[in-house]
Amino acid sequence: MTREPGGTELGERIRHILLEHASIEPLSELLLVLAARVQHVHAVIAPALALGQTVVCDRYIDATYAYQGAGRGLPSPLLDELGRLLALPTPDLTLYFDVPVATAQARRRGRPADRIESEDATFFERVRAGYMARAAAAPARFVTVPASGTLVEVGQSVVTALDGLW
Amino acid sequence: MTREPGGTELGERIRHILLEHASIEPLSELLLVLAARVQHVHAVIAPALALGQTVVCDRYIDATYAYQGAGRGLPSPLLDELGRLLALPTPDLTLYFDVPVATAQARRRGRPADRIESEDATFFERVRAGYMARAAAAPARFVTVPASGTLVEVGQSVVTALDGLW
Repeated sequence: MTREPGGTELGERIRHILLEHASIEPLSELLLVLAARVQHVHAVIAPALALGQTVVCDRYIDATYAYQGAGRGLPSPLLDELGRLLALPTPDLTLYFDVPVATAQARRRGRPADRIESEDATFFERVRAGYMARAAAAPARFVTVPASGTLVEVGQSVVTALDGLW
Repeated sequence: MTREPGGTELGERIRHILLEHASIEPLSELLLVLAARVQHVHAVIAPALALGQTVVCDRYIDATYAYQGAGRGLPSPLLDELGRLLALPTPDLTLYFDVPVATAQARRRGRPADRIESEDATFFERVRAGYMARAAAAPARFVTVPASGTLVEVGQSVVTALDGLW
């Protein structure tokens, strides 16, 4: 179990910049996200895969298409080309937990918003649409899990989805 | 007058990570350098150029070929392709101040070495060769300034080089 950009000290420092820094160009934001991802893959994911372990990672390449692509407006062909150059491993399976934007915002429960959470609802509508477009483009790899229910209900949906696959 | 990644708060934070952080993958280092460069171009260089100003920048794209390319061993075609995707402005003129590695190291004068300065002499021999290769590949844009002399002598070489061009 890991999360981006966690698991590396470098990644956590980049995460701090991404979430707290006031002014970042979309293209700089993208490059910072990719820098953290490369370090995370090299230091955490690739060694685990080499040991034959199953890796579950919270956020990965699809999140970049959703946030920096659909959210910030960077073109998908740019993300495709950068992805090709970086040659990072593709997930076998991606679980996309889908909730309406208002539900996601309500679940923050009063915690202060970071730089990305401070974006307005239209930003997150684009992010959500970006995830849906990724899911539609790769149906064999994606499972969209309706996530408006309780933790138990969502967990059961995941089990059902995995049962159907393996 | 500006320097990379200076002139932006984001750039200085990235610079701090690059110079002080213990463990960074070469490809992550490259992406961090590019993230700082994009922000610097957007916030400092492009606005100055738009006003018709002359911009003198300490380090730029060629430094990436020297340090992350020749120094770290990342392939030039990767740097070429990333450069094409980022579409940053090309300098009209690049002054390369050349000294033997031992001279450069002696000029640090006892100041503690940062992460990059801590590399051994073979690393800096590769970096120097990387700069020389860039200069040889683009003779119309590059002026190699012998920089082993005094500040006045080096300054005079710059004046002479510029006189020949403009």
